[in-house]
Amino acid sequence: MTDTTTALSAADKGLDKSLERLFDLLRIPSISTDVAYQDACEKAARWLVVELIALGFEATVRKTPGRPMVVAHYTPKAATAKTPHVLFYGHYDVQPVDPVELWHSPPFEPVRKTGKDGVERIYGRGATDDKGQLMTFVEAARAWISATGSLPIKATFLIEGEEESGSPSLIPFLKENKAELSCATAFVCDSNMWDEKTPAITTRLRGMVHEEIVITGPRIDLHSGMYGGAAMNPIRVLSKVLAALHDKTGKVTIPGFYDGVKPLPAAAKKQWQSLKFSEKKFLGDVGLAVPAGEKGKSVLEQIWARPTAEVNGIWGGYTDAGGKTVLPSKAHAKLTFRLVGQQEPEKVLKAFQKFVKDLLPKDCKVEFSGTGGGAPASEISEDNAFIRKSAAALKAEFNRAPVLMGSGGSIPIVRSFKDILGMDSVLVGFGLNDDAIHSPNEKYNLSSFHKGVRSWVRIMGALAE
Amino acid sequence: MTDTTTALSAADKGLDKSLERLFDLLRIPSISTDVAYQDACEKAARWLVVELIALGFEATVRKTPGRPMVVAHYTPKAATAKTPHVLFYGHYDVQPVDPVELWHSPPFEPVRKTGKDGVERIYGRGATDDKGQLMTFVEAARAWISATGSLPIKATFLIEGEEESGSPSLIPFLKENKAELSCATAFVCDSNMWDEKTPAITTRLRGMVHEEIVITGPRIDLHSGMYGGAAMNPIRVLSKVLAALHDKTGKVTIPGFYDGVKPLPAAAKKQWQSLKFSEKKFLGDVGLAVPAGEKGKSVLEQIWARPTAEVNGIWGGYTDAGGKTVLPSKAHAKLTFRLVGQQEPEKVLKAFQKFVKDLLPKDCKVEFSGTGGGAPASEISEDNAFIRKSAAALKAEFNRAPVLMGSGGSIPIVRSFKDILGMDSVLVGFGLNDDAIHSPNEKYNLSSFHKGVRSWVRIMGALAE
Repeated sequence: MTDTTTALSAADKGLDKSLERLFDLLRIPSISTDVAYQDACEKAARWLVVELIALGFEATVRKTPGRPMVVAHYTPKAATAKTPHVLFYGHYDVQPVDPVELWHSPPFEPVRKTGKDGVERIYGRGATDDKGQLMTFVEAARAWISATGSLPIKATFLIEGEEESGSPSLIPFLKENKAELSCATAFVCDSNMWDEKTPAITTRLRGMVHEEIVITGPRIDLHSGMYGGAAMNPIRVLSKVLAALHDKTGKVTIPGFYDGVKPLPAAAKKQWQSLKFSEKKFLGDVGLAVPAGEKGKSVLEQIWARPTAEVNGIWGGYTDAGGKTVLPSKAHAKLTFRLVGQQEPEKVLKAFQKFVKDLLPKDCKVEFSGTGGGAPASEISEDNAFIRKSAAALKAEFNRAPVLMGSGGSIPIVRSFKDILGMDSVLVGFGLNDDAIHSPNEKYNLSSFHKGVRSWVRIMGALAE
Repeated sequence: MTDTTTALSAADKGLDKSLERLFDLLRIPSISTDVAYQDACEKAARWLVVELIALGFEATVRKTPGRPMVVAHYTPKAATAKTPHVLFYGHYDVQPVDPVELWHSPPFEPVRKTGKDGVERIYGRGATDDKGQLMTFVEAARAWISATGSLPIKATFLIEGEEESGSPSLIPFLKENKAELSCATAFVCDSNMWDEKTPAITTRLRGMVHEEIVITGPRIDLHSGMYGGAAMNPIRVLSKVLAALHDKTGKVTIPGFYDGVKPLPAAAKKQWQSLKFSEKKFLGDVGLAVPAGEKGKSVLEQIWARPTAEVNGIWGGYTDAGGKTVLPSKAHAKLTFRLVGQQEPEKVLKAFQKFVKDLLPKDCKVEFSGTGGGAPASEISEDNAFIRKSAAALKAEFNRAPVLMGSGGSIPIVRSFKDILGMDSVLVGFGLNDDAIHSPNEKYNLSSFHKGVRSWVRIMGALAE
């Protein structure tokens, strides 16, 4: 028996205990976008440090101006100059839970349920994103240590608490701790498999930038009878602006928006076509039938290789029960732009702001209150030893070669690792498209968790060879 | 001294006590659009009945399927067949108070304050609309009774509690109590003066109909990274619909919307031009400069004689603090249409619903959940004795002839009084454009209240002559 098979066996035997620990972490409501949960975020960070210290890591909670970071190091006693040193990244913060009334069980009281389809699932906020995922490499480390007395590699764990709120503290933290955090590569566990039977390594990520706008018409709320017709309604103005964002072909109309966007290379187009991805099922699963993106592009291209302008929230006027004949003073919207290729976040924001101002009637005002920042897209070279070794390990676990895929989501850390620490990233995760991350009833399949732990056991073993 | 001058003197002497009673009524949070305030509405109705019984009225709280009605009758002992019998109408329900954080003092703790301009004002929800206004005729009745031992006319007071929520119980109630409520005319006290020195009788009222729409895109909230670009965002669809409601000239684009709308008669146009209404001040007072209605129409025509399509509220997706990268399942809007001429509420609603459906992508759904109903516009003949007598009484009080004006607001009761009870209405009120009804910091000038009471004392006296 090799060390890897011993560790795999320990992972299997320890599965129930692993799940108990995951549930402890899921019970902590560590929502980072809302200051009301600051204490919970700190509690989650401390919980991780206590666990990692018990495993033999040198682990610390590190203060930031926002939510704390968890940094933990492990050096095997038998380590030599040749022992590879890699970083594992995850995040302990989670999304808000609203609309909470749509959850079948309370979001912070995780449950394990077997569906009518016989599939066992873990329900709770963070079940996948990213507590379930980060616990796969934590528990893989535990399996190695309990089976063999040590990890087979030098490892640094970096677990942040602001991923869901734009990671404001991350870049300064990486800069201040550059020497401590620079490794041969980073493994980022925050992405999906191709499907439940097929693993994936994500090599292409969209960037993102946020914006929030407030349009003011009259300086106070007005009576829609007394003023209606003569006074400009800011909801009318906001609707005009948002409606103008896309043309009839689904293209974003902001001048200059597509600067830096290149057509998809023929090789990638061919590989993606070979995936036999069902657009009908992908959209049908969420109740839709017609791709909403640019006409003539496949759905995979729309979500992996094309930028978006998306409204995440809109509000203004009277929104409670019943009616109110108000002509409101203000109308609000939150937007995100997903970026690809060489699109620059700041340039996109400026182009959007000009676009809004150009559509504004003379006597209306607009304020922009986005947090700025944002991150450009990342494309990772598939030609490196860490990706090759990981691919082989995943193939051994799943009996299928992993798909080298894109992701519509944004993991700005990948860009920061490259720019600040000079590391490439290997994105391996075990989520599925139907996990409902960011939505009510978020879940992680038990098999995702179990195979996730086993996959990391194999990858750690493969790296040491 | 005539009876009227004796009663006027009683009104002046009793002003402070009248205000105390008004404040008692203002303290009751009788919001009719929210069931949470059902008890408060019932309390307001009982409060009025107790006051009116003390004055010698036969007063009762009358149950309806919604908020109760107050009905009170007064017959002078000296009444003959020639004594006129008129109805006075007001409403004790008020608008919701949100956004409550913008109030300078709590909305249901009325205060009396003298501004830097030396003007005394009463602040509180309902200060004008309509508690302050209805108390002008209640206190005028008190002045007559305390000064002369009786009202000079037969009076019926009808005070409803659902005016702010579309008066769902009113029409059945008028039908069931037709004999009891039919009078020679109705005085409706829920409108404005021309300005603080110039009284007005409103002879033209817009109608109104509500609608509420929900557009559903994906069946659940989605991650805007995973699905953004491929999945249709219902906020995008809703924005397209709302943005399409008006063309560049401010005209409503719904096919058939203007059916039944006639051009303003030349005589009315001329009279309104003679009013020297300052469009600049009217809009400037609320922070605007450019009339938003149909190009080529004056502001008075836009608000008194042209229909509107107005969004009163919009919401969808994530609207709390911070960001959330959600692509929401649903987007909502509340709308009202103000109607003029012969526009029919049901026809306008149907035309709007078709307009929305025609703009909907194939895989999005729309639901309409407006309460329906609504009321067409009212135009009242100025050639009747009640209007003439009221105009003379107002001129005596203000030393200026009242303006015969239009109102952009909707008082559907006027139409119902005509259709069900066969009565014309005389609309006399003492509100001002800057009273901020339906908004934070609603106020009623002390002089509005005082001159209001005195005006009703004079009108009651004039009717008896």
